[in-house]
Amino acid sequence: MADEVILLNFWPSVFGMRIRIALAEKGIEYEYREEDLWNKSPLLLKMNPVHKKIPVLIHNGKPICESLIAVQYIDEVWKDKSPFFPSDPYERAQARFWADYVDKKMYSIGRTVWTTKGEEQEAAKKELIEMLKVLEGELGDKAYFGGENFGYIDIALIPFYSRFYTLETFGNFSIEAECPKLMGWAKRCHKRESVSNSLPDFHEVYDFVVQLNKRLGIS
Amino acid sequence: MADEVILLNFWPSVFGMRIRIALAEKGIEYEYREEDLWNKSPLLLKMNPVHKKIPVLIHNGKPICESLIAVQYIDEVWKDKSPFFPSDPYERAQARFWADYVDKKMYSIGRTVWTTKGEEQEAAKKELIEMLKVLEGELGDKAYFGGENFGYIDIALIPFYSRFYTLETFGNFSIEAECPKLMGWAKRCHKRESVSNSLPDFHEVYDFVVQLNKRLGIS
Repeated sequence: MADEVILLNFWPSVFGMRIRIALAEKGIEYEYREEDLWNKSPLLLKMNPVHKKIPVLIHNGKPICESLIAVQYIDEVWKDKSPFFPSDPYERAQARFWADYVDKKMYSIGRTVWTTKGEEQEAAKKELIEMLKVLEGELGDKAYFGGENFGYIDIALIPFYSRFYTLETFGNFSIEAECPKLMGWAKRCHKRESVSNSLPDFHEVYDFVVQLNKRLGIS
Repeated sequence: MADEVILLNFWPSVFGMRIRIALAEKGIEYEYREEDLWNKSPLLLKMNPVHKKIPVLIHNGKPICESLIAVQYIDEVWKDKSPFFPSDPYERAQARFWADYVDKKMYSIGRTVWTTKGEEQEAAKKELIEMLKVLEGELGDKAYFGGENFGYIDIALIPFYSRFYTLETFGNFSIEAECPKLMGWAKRCHKRESVSNSLPDFHEVYDFVVQLNKRLGIS
């Protein structure tokens, strides 16, 4: 039986992008279904009753929720092609550590940069730059976070590249000036079809955030 | 060469308990080092420079930070005894999902129950009970979350049992009355030496929280 793979998503979601990249790296065909987050589908509510959030990967009728868990699942099911993890347990733990670091920090700090002003925004910007410098330090002179191979940490982090233009515009700063090596890594990743086909246009993300702020009464 | 395993911890930490249980399940001997969180050791700051937090597992000189990552690492390194995960990728994803659910909710909601009063405390108590009922629903009639075998979700959740007495005393409610099956599971886990030897005395946890609240100016 051919695998039936469905992705419930909302296009600006960095978490959804992770799953799209992972599926593309493995060469898995799937059906993409765009959700309206202000009117969620019965399927989404049924498939993710606990969090009621996108993205949800549905494989042969069974849901996998939470993007990093879905990426690991994809790697374990389609294990013959492009492994996302090194085989050494210590390196695997390090990959999980850095992906977790991205998860705990990046989303909320980024959001604070474009939903606040003044001192609060400055503090978030400072924290964001510090965080990116920590990641740049971990990257070092490697091509990808895991070395020569594009892997788990790259998949966890590169979707946020689609928000860099928005962050820079709202925050009035240059990520490239602060973190040139990290920016080199981002551009390297973006040359991969799996990434460029999974990330939206950066200006469309900016327009979306501007509209979202208006909708939420943040100007 | 014999493995050198060290755990940097602080005794009331539910996250440290996870690692202690995992090491005990695998029969790994280790050196336990208690940290003073108000005066952290140079070793802790060196081993976890990013988060500067306990617990840290140090295996042959190399640190593994974040408790769930350390538990997975222990399972991958000492893989021949008592596997924490099922072999099926979907069941593995489910185990990760529920451990992540515990991580995202349990600590902060529990803390709110004993650091607030009035409406805020009532809301946290309600949320805590709802969360425990969701977990009880997932447990169903199984002996452990993964079925017959004590595993990853059990290791992630059971340390919080050491705080149930504190939560019940501060919140003036009975978890057993709300979630009898979940309490049956907790007592079943606590009969395992790996768990009972890793969890502190429940009254000592309560006394610690009372003292901590005083120190933080919460009475």
